[in-house]
This record gives sequence, C-alpha cells and structure tokens, in this order.
Amino acid sequence: MPSRPLGDYLNALRASTPLIHCITNYVAMNSTANVLLAIGASPAMLHAQEEVAEFTAISGALSINIGTLSSPWGDAMTIAARTAHESGIPWVLDPVAVGVSAFRQRLCETLLAYQPSVIRGNASEIQALNGLANQGRGVDTTASTQEATAAAIALAQQHRCVVAVTGETDFITDGTDHYRLNGGHALMPRVTTLGCGLSALVASFVAANREQPLEACLAALACFSIAGSRAGDQAEGPGSFQVALLDALYQLTPDDLSTLAQLEAVHAI
Amino acid sequence: MPSRPLGDYLNALRASTPLIHCITNYVAMNSTANVLLAIGASPAMLHAQEEVAEFTAISGALSINIGTLSSPWGDAMTIAARTAHESGIPWVLDPVAVGVSAFRQRLCETLLAYQPSVIRGNASEIQALNGLANQGRGVDTTASTQEATAAAIALAQQHRCVVAVTGETDFITDGTDHYRLNGGHALMPRVTTLGCGLSALVASFVAANREQPLEACLAALACFSIAGSRAGDQAEGPGSFQVALLDALYQLTPDDLSTLAQLEAVHAI
Amino acid sequence: MPSRPLGDYLNALRASTPLIHCITNYVAMNSTANVLLAIGASPAMLHAQEEVAEFTAISGALSINIGTLSSPWGDAMTIAARTAHESGIPWVLDPVAVGVSAFRQRLCETLLAYQPSVIRGNASEIQALNGLANQGRGVDTTASTQEATAAAIALAQQHRCVVAVTGETDFITDGTDHYRLNGGHALMPRVTTLGCGLSALVASFVAANREQPLEACLAALACFSIAGSRAGDQAEGPGSFQVALLDALYQLTPDDLSTLAQLEAVHAI
Repeated sequence: MPSRPLGDYLNALRASTPLIHCITNYVAMNSTANVLLAIGASPAMLHAQEEVAEFTAISGALSINIGTLSSPWGDAMTIAARTAHESGIPWVLDPVAVGVSAFRQRLCETLLAYQPSVIRGNASEIQALNGLANQGRGVDTTASTQEATAAAIALAQQHRCVVAVTGETDFITDGTDHYRLNGGHALMPRVTTLGCGLSALVASFVAANREQPLEACLAALACFSIAGSRAGDQAEGPGSFQVALLDALYQLTPDDLSTLAQLEAVHAI
Repeated sequence: MPSRPLGDYLNALRASTPLIHCITNYVAMNSTANVLLAIGASPAMLHAQEEVAEFTAISGALSINIGTLSSPWGDAMTIAARTAHESGIPWVLDPVAVGVSAFRQRLCETLLAYQPSVIRGNASEIQALNGLANQGRGVDTTASTQEATAAAIALAQQHRCVVAVTGETDFITDGTDHYRLNGGHALMPRVTTLGCGLSALVASFVAANREQPLEACLAALACFSIAGSRAGDQAEGPGSFQVALLDALYQLTPDDLSTLAQLEAVHAI
Repeated sequence: MPSRPLGDYLNALRASTPLIHCITNYVAMNSTANVLLAIGASPAMLHAQEEVAEFTAISGALSINIGTLSSPWGDAMTIAARTAHESGIPWVLDPVAVGVSAFRQRLCETLLAYQPSVIRGNASEIQALNGLANQGRGVDTTASTQEATAAAIALAQQHRCVVAVTGETDFITDGTDHYRLNGGHALMPRVTTLGCGLSALVASFVAANREQPLEACLAALACFSIAGSRAGDQAEGPGSFQVALLDALYQLTPDDLSTLAQLEAVHAI
C-alpha cells in the first residue's frame, strides 16, 4: 500500500499551488481549468509554437490531451513534451481516441519518446496505445479495465512510467506495483471531459510530489473517485453532477482522501 | 400527425447509443457533448483533415455547425459532409450566422451539395440560406419563425431534406408535411449554444431512426421543448437553467415525449 | 464620483442589447457568451480573417482577449482592432499573461496602436503591459492591485484609454480620475475565465454608453462585484458559484447597481 497517507499528497499540492501547463482539447479546456482551480492548482492553457517551450519550462507539470487534435496542435504538443523531457518536468499523456486513426497513433509514438511520467486513458485507449487491435468507439471505451491490465503493465514497463486505466474500476501500475481503485458514480460517463480533467489533476499531483509519481497518481484518482461519489449522491442528473463535482473537489480534505479511498494493492494479475 | 408516438424515437436512440461526429464551434463544444450524453448518445469531436473522413465513415450521424468558422475547419466540414453523403450517413447542417458574410455563404453552398438530412437554424439563418436578403444580427435572429416558413419549405423542397426553424415556436417541414411545435421557456435565448446543442440532438435522433428523419427531428425538438419548459420552472436564471436542462434531458422518459409535446400538423401555410 | 447613478448604465445596456464581437480564448468562450447573455447583451464569437473586419464594423463593441493566442488569431485580432479604430467602434483589450512571452508582448504592442477604449487585466498583466519586469505566473497574478496603480495610470495616460486592474480590490483610471472598487468574493479566483468574461462585460457597457467609457467600465465592474458577492453567499464551492453568478447577473437591477457598489474616488495615489 502507499508509503504515506494519500492526504499528504493533497496537502503538498495545496501548499505549492503548482502551475500546470495544459495542452488539451477544446471540449475540455474550461472544465479542466475548473477542476484544477477547485483542487488548488493553477492552470494555464497555451499552445502556440512561438511560446510553448518557454512556458513548459517554467511550469510545475505539463498535461497533454490529444482530443481535438490537428497538425499545428500536434507540433506544439511535441515541442512541449520534448521541453518537459529535457527540463526534467513531469508530464502526463492522455491519448484520447488513439485507436481511431493513424494520425493519432503517429503522434502518440512521437510523444512517447519523450517519456511521460504518467499515461492516463480508458481501457480501449490503453490497449490501442500498446499496439493491440482494439480501436474503441470514438472517445468512449468498448473494453473493461480488467481487459486492459496486461496492456497497462506492458506500457509501464516499456516506457518506465505510471499507467492509469480509468473506468468503473481504475487500475494503476508502474510496471512493478499495481493498484485497483473503486468508487465514483454511475453518472460520471454521462458528463463530458471528466477523464480529460482527471489527467490534468494527475499532472497537478505529480507536480507537487515529483519523487512519487505512482502514489501522486493514486491520490489524484482517489480525489475524483471520492468527490464523484459525493457529487452523485446529491445530483439529479448530469447537469447538477458537474456542479456538485467541482464543489466536492474544493471541499475535499486530506483526511477524506486518506480514509475514504477504496484502494487495494493487486498482487496476482 | 407522426406515424408513431414520439417516445418510440427516444427509445430507439437510447437502445443504440449512436456515435455522433460533431464538427461544431468552440463555444458550443462542451455543452453540445453534454446534451448528447444527457439524452443517451455518444458524442465525438474531431476536425483534423487527416482523420475526419475515417471518423465520419464509422459514425451514426454527422453534425456540422459553422459557428466559429475558419478556412481549415470549413475544409474539414466539406470532407466530412462529402463522406457522409457518399457513405449514406445522415447529417445535419446548422448554418450559424450564414447571413453575416460571403465566407459563410460560400461554405454553405458547398455543403448543401452534399444533401444534409436536416437543416436546423433560426429564422434569420433559414431566410439567409434560402437566398433572401435578411442578414440576421450576429448569431441571433431578427425574424420570427412565421416569417421564415416559406423559406423553410423552399429549402426542404430544393434540397430534399427536413428543415427546422427554431425559436419561440418551431416550424418543421420536409417540403410536403409541416409541423408547428410550441413549448420551451423564455430563459432559453439567455443561454448560449442551446441551438447548437439542439442540432446535434437532431443528428442523434436521426442516427437512431434513419428511415424517418422528419419524425426523428420532431422528437428531438420536442425533447428540448419539454426539458426546457421543466428546467425553466425550476431555474432562477440562466445559470441554474443550464444545469436543470441537462438534468431534465437525462430524466426525460419516452412517455413524457409522447404525451407532452405541443405539436400540431400545419395544413394551411 | 460618477456623474450619474451606475444603474443608468445598466438600463442603457438592456435597452439596446448591444452586439459584442468577441475574439477570446477557447477556455473562456462559453462562459463569456453566457455572461453577456445573462446581463442582457448579444455575444458573437467570430475570428476568421475572411470575415472579421465585416463583423467588427457592424458590432456595438469589440472585445479582444489574447488567452490561447496563436499566429492566425493574432492576425485576426489585429484586423479587428484596426477596423474598430477606423470605424470609431469602442474596443476592450484583455492582455492575458502578456508577461510570459515575447510573442504576446509583440502582439499587444501592435494592438495598442489601435487605441483600445479600455484595458482590463490583473495586476501582473498591467505591470507587464507597462513595460515593467514583472512577468506574473501563467495567467494568475503575483502582484496586488495596489502595486499596479502607477502602471495603470501611466498606461491610461499614454494610450488615452481607461485602464482597469481587477483583483481583490479593483482600481480604475482614465489617467485623470481614479476609482477603487471593493466587493466580490473569495471564491472568484477559484473559477476559471471570470476575468475574461468581465472584459467582455466591460465592452458591452461601453457599447451602450459610448460617451462615458470610464463610468461604463465602473458599472460593469460593479455588476461583477455585486453579483459575485451574492453568488458567494449562496455557493458551496466553485461549481455552484458559477451557476449562481450567472443567475445573479441576470437578476441584477439598476437600483442594486446604484446603491450597492462599494466604489470610492481615489484622490491621493
């Protein structure tokens, strides 16, 4: 199990208000910024090739999400990932819908060479990124987390990073240690870009806890899972869920995180 | 009147969770995705010329909205519409502010050659698309639905499609049969991109009910009108209206749709 | 103090429903449109170089925000600002994160030549725009409003415009008359793009009150400060704050504005 209570990672985040450079899709920009502000980080969205390297270099972490990809954005992502790699700045890759086109697959191959700290995706995306045939269905998954376990471990070992497969159950691995996390709420798949926001949240926890990316990632996912569960208890549908989720992230205490996370170490795969 | 209860069309949508390829404006992306998820469809936003044809070809329907148009996006829309046309995939055109520039008019002419299944716009947009002089006022309408009736019928006949003029009253025609729909709420024009989301909702109903695009369109509009009316009863302003609208779309039952739609067939124009 | 009750400026806005041409960042587009609709203005987001001049020329005001800047958008902003300048249409500049890159600084220099009616930014941005070394920290400020007072006055005098530094306290000057405004709520920095929406709100007030840009700007800022304070009283976190803010802007009366604004003239700097 984690070496420290998960709440310690939230304390570290709120104490440092890390600046998170997000290059994300158009659908997710606003909600992602609000997720980061709610938890206590400082988001910034910039993507121009003229300035992207300058900005990555002063950030606490970089979060790249390829959702509404185009060529100029792919180029900016590449510059930013390279800068992060060269500057020792942690970064997170969210390979949205990587299975649906060769265009996305090529970019992800390029980006993986710059060694992300964490890859977060749904089961179909993690399978596709690992070279399997599963192509998902648009941005949603057609596979279960369980089916992507082997792909996640293989990716983590190959790229020496943390891989998080999120869904009804989350599976998190650094190739050696593996965890399963439960929680959340059935309304979550009915709200757009929650996964995108979660990737940026992971970046903010890793920024504040650089030495322990696996545990930082667990803390970020646990925040979403606890806050999502609370929001779901109050919501009457996906509109009120979104509102309640931001409120719940804002209200979440380190003690909540340490005591309520439904986390288990996985020994036998 | 419709050949089947409108609720049947919602049942068909929820049973198939159609994948809707949206190429829409930046303002509307998030809210449109949430409208589709709330009703039970699966949205995907992609616009890169490198992948747009591949993706349209595997979608249940395509929804094109020209709101924040630029040249590369216009090119992607053209590729996607051509793909939909050639693959027999239904598609919806939302000609936002078509009257304000020659740039928009030219693109709409190009797109119309690929035979949309449905055109949805406000009265000024439908008039402008039909070649009338009315230029609207930005993205809002300066004409009433009644004033756009003739333009709607002419467009429907010329392009062999369904045309929906939405506003305080909606008018829907396939050139032969005409309907009028009432409902909604006075707060709706005070929330941005509701019309954009409605166009994508129409696409999702047509995807799930390909043989009857006129009635599928009526069902989609009736969803918005009933959910809008309910949301308005609860809301204290446009902020709480948005939240309540997503909740109401999520909660809407087929029976609600069949029994509450304020629909009338129009015999004399 | 203002020559007329601030409520008069809100009355003028609602009576004219000014059309506001917004060229703003991707993160802020939806929330900005909703702020304008909530108060009673008519937003339109267009940025294509093919049509931007046509549209600025028929607008009541132009609002430029450089948040997610790229070269094509910078070019469109330049065309729009030049059109506004040549056509006598008021325009507002929001120099987001101008201190973080030479790319942003160059664009702002170009834009300033077209004489904005109002510049609105946080303290770091106003300092950076005035050529000081402070570079802020991403899009958030590292300086207090008080520290940017001299920079604001210098900019106002040099460019013959109104400058508003917003933050916990706002400072507003036209280079001759200076005001300080209090209010708002501690949750405001925890919601993204509120400042961006405020810049557009300023544009809408100036559009409806062209002869008195300083007082129109005060009225816009007072709207946000009063509505923000009310929203904060109801909110349980940043999610419910956003919802309540739009409702509060919608419900705000001219009398509220005249009587509740915590405004003071500043005589000694």
